[in-house]
Amino acid sequence: MKVLVINAGSSSLKYQLYDMRDESVLASGRVERIGMDSSIVTHEPPGKPEVRSVSEILEHTTAVRRVIDMLVDPNVGVIANMNEIDAVGHRVVHGGEAFKQSVIVTPEVKLEIKKLFDLAPLHNPAHMMGILAVEANLPEVPQTVVFDTAFHQTMPRESYLYPIPMVLYRRHKVRRYGFHGTSHAYVSAQAASFLKQPLESLKLITCHIGNGASCTAIKDGKSFDTSMGMTPLEGLMMGTRSGDLDPAVVPFVMNKEDLSVSEVNSMLNKHSGLQAISGLSSDMREITEAIGEGDKNAKLAFDMYTYRVRKYIGAYAAAMNGVDTIVFTAGVGENSSVLRKAVCEGLTFLGLELDEERNNARSKEVRFITKDTSRVKVLVVPTNEELLIARDTYALVNEQSEASL
Amino acid sequence: MKVLVINAGSSSLKYQLYDMRDESVLASGRVERIGMDSSIVTHEPPGKPEVRSVSEILEHTTAVRRVIDMLVDPNVGVIANMNEIDAVGHRVVHGGEAFKQSVIVTPEVKLEIKKLFDLAPLHNPAHMMGILAVEANLPEVPQTVVFDTAFHQTMPRESYLYPIPMVLYRRHKVRRYGFHGTSHAYVSAQAASFLKQPLESLKLITCHIGNGASCTAIKDGKSFDTSMGMTPLEGLMMGTRSGDLDPAVVPFVMNKEDLSVSEVNSMLNKHSGLQAISGLSSDMREITEAIGEGDKNAKLAFDMYTYRVRKYIGAYAAAMNGVDTIVFTAGVGENSSVLRKAVCEGLTFLGLELDEERNNARSKEVRFITKDTSRVKVLVVPTNEELLIARDTYALVNEQSEASL
Repeated sequence: MKVLVINAGSSSLKYQLYDMRDESVLASGRVERIGMDSSIVTHEPPGKPEVRSVSEILEHTTAVRRVIDMLVDPNVGVIANMNEIDAVGHRVVHGGEAFKQSVIVTPEVKLEIKKLFDLAPLHNPAHMMGILAVEANLPEVPQTVVFDTAFHQTMPRESYLYPIPMVLYRRHKVRRYGFHGTSHAYVSAQAASFLKQPLESLKLITCHIGNGASCTAIKDGKSFDTSMGMTPLEGLMMGTRSGDLDPAVVPFVMNKEDLSVSEVNSMLNKHSGLQAISGLSSDMREITEAIGEGDKNAKLAFDMYTYRVRKYIGAYAAAMNGVDTIVFTAGVGENSSVLRKAVCEGLTFLGLELDEERNNARSKEVRFITKDTSRVKVLVVPTNEELLIARDTYALVNEQSEASL
Repeated sequence: MKVLVINAGSSSLKYQLYDMRDESVLASGRVERIGMDSSIVTHEPPGKPEVRSVSEILEHTTAVRRVIDMLVDPNVGVIANMNEIDAVGHRVVHGGEAFKQSVIVTPEVKLEIKKLFDLAPLHNPAHMMGILAVEANLPEVPQTVVFDTAFHQTMPRESYLYPIPMVLYRRHKVRRYGFHGTSHAYVSAQAASFLKQPLESLKLITCHIGNGASCTAIKDGKSFDTSMGMTPLEGLMMGTRSGDLDPAVVPFVMNKEDLSVSEVNSMLNKHSGLQAISGLSSDMREITEAIGEGDKNAKLAFDMYTYRVRKYIGAYAAAMNGVDTIVFTAGVGENSSVLRKAVCEGLTFLGLELDEERNNARSKEVRFITKDTSRVKVLVVPTNEELLIARDTYALVNEQSEASL
């Protein structure tokens, strides 16, 4: 079975085509600047040169057609015709309380996703465009939706409720949802398998640290608490997002700087975090490079960032009354040994002993970065959200076709 | 020397008169409903019956005059005449970055406090009215100001800066200040003295849990981090305050419910916390009583509240790479054994062993509530912010008079 994984944004669409027999990636790529006059399609068939084409792509249906054109192209394509695509899996950011797991797309599912537009106005409408665009191009192919929030639907009420009037929860569903669920689920399962221990027996803290960043406390194999909240703004300091903040700062700044609701949202989501403190970059690689060159603001940004990761690890250790395994994943978490070192060095009180050599080694495999004697194990686990979407899609479509036999 | 301690609010004024020879309270009391037609003065001379009088008190100068009248009254008074008042110490909520310690009031100090009206619009203007009212009544008496923020001015930048555009710090001084500093300073010193260890050698977490609540990490004898922020809204869940929240919830709710800046502030400060979740009360005594009667919302409020205290203790243990002493203080912290139990039971991973009998004992003295074998010591330390204001005032006025000799 071949599964196409789609991550549709408002002006972009990323894709991977998987052969599920060996979970290999047949091709991946992206369409950028959808709706603008010079849209760019980048197609990357493994082992062959990247193909890039510029044209006018005004909406998502055309974008999906171009992707299919690339996949079946006699020269750069990887399949003979579009009938080889057996299923399409979509990443959907917000599943609200309606979705506790991945599902096959049905009219009812589309209706539920639409109801969640309010909670994820930047993401869910774009995902819906992606679903409709695939439907228009491949009307017979089953589609699935895999939610960033679903894994966290196991949180207990004391983790997910905010201490604000309950009418806001009842009326507008204001609560903690958490995101990066696909990644937290994937790396926690990978960690348990690497440790040869049942996931249910572990007290895990998974740190997904990329441009967005979140920590999750995983107990009894389930998400127990997570740092992102109703939106992906809460929690850790990120590339351009503030993370935690005195809530009173929001109205104060709106008042002082005469900012609208959307302006203050933009400030906190796009102009804060590493970018704001360093005055330089939202990219941890550039931050650590600048520190090497003696940049004091970059150092301050790095210190604030790692300090906040450390505090969340402590908080979640307390939330679970202990922690036995900490996992670093995603772009920064997998690649920045200095970040991992800065976080772990302040956690020796937990019985964590970092192994410098292991931490500095480069690898794409799951691995320890603590000493064998360390009471708390720390792992680096490469994440792969697209693969998990492909797997969920494969499983759901198989289930359905078996049920219909 | 006799020191009058004043805590002036916008429509209230509390007072204590101390005899500094033995730090005894000669009288205490309060004026309520200032500016309304039936203001109430309540005067409590220890060992004598409480005196209560109702009259029209339109502003703070009259309120202070009534306080002095009570103190020198031939029947209910405790001093012969107002010349016996040697100094007046004021509680001031916000000292911003200008004040790192208590100071004698001068024209420059008054100017600085005025500059901070913006950061504490509900408190500092009222404190200023209190200072001016004392000046009008006792023009020759030295006054001091003792700030809730001053103790936290030792925090490093990674604790006090928010990851938002730095221009907001430069232009409007948006940063973490922290509050309850007088209490955190007092109880940490008391704890060190009780443990017979230098304060500088301890890693302390002090939990001031009253109607307002905050945790402070104290390292090398100094405040290293604290849960309240630019305002007293951030951090722990409180009686009527939300504490931590996804910052994006603020604009979301403003938008959905068409709330103004001041309405959303009022919602988060006055209609959230225990009150909002329990739907019953902001008072922990009523919450725990209701739990006994099987009230599920009260139980949820309690669980959320204690869970958040526990997470802060974990976060601050990580912030300091360890903790050796945890202190509970203020109304709830000193009196609610069930709260302390709920917080501590989930912290056995730190080597904390609660002693149930010690925890349930009632006492007004500093005491252990952990077993002798407990690796982390937990103490209950009664706080006394008024006494610390009196002590600071006494010390400053003595210094000044010695310097002028």
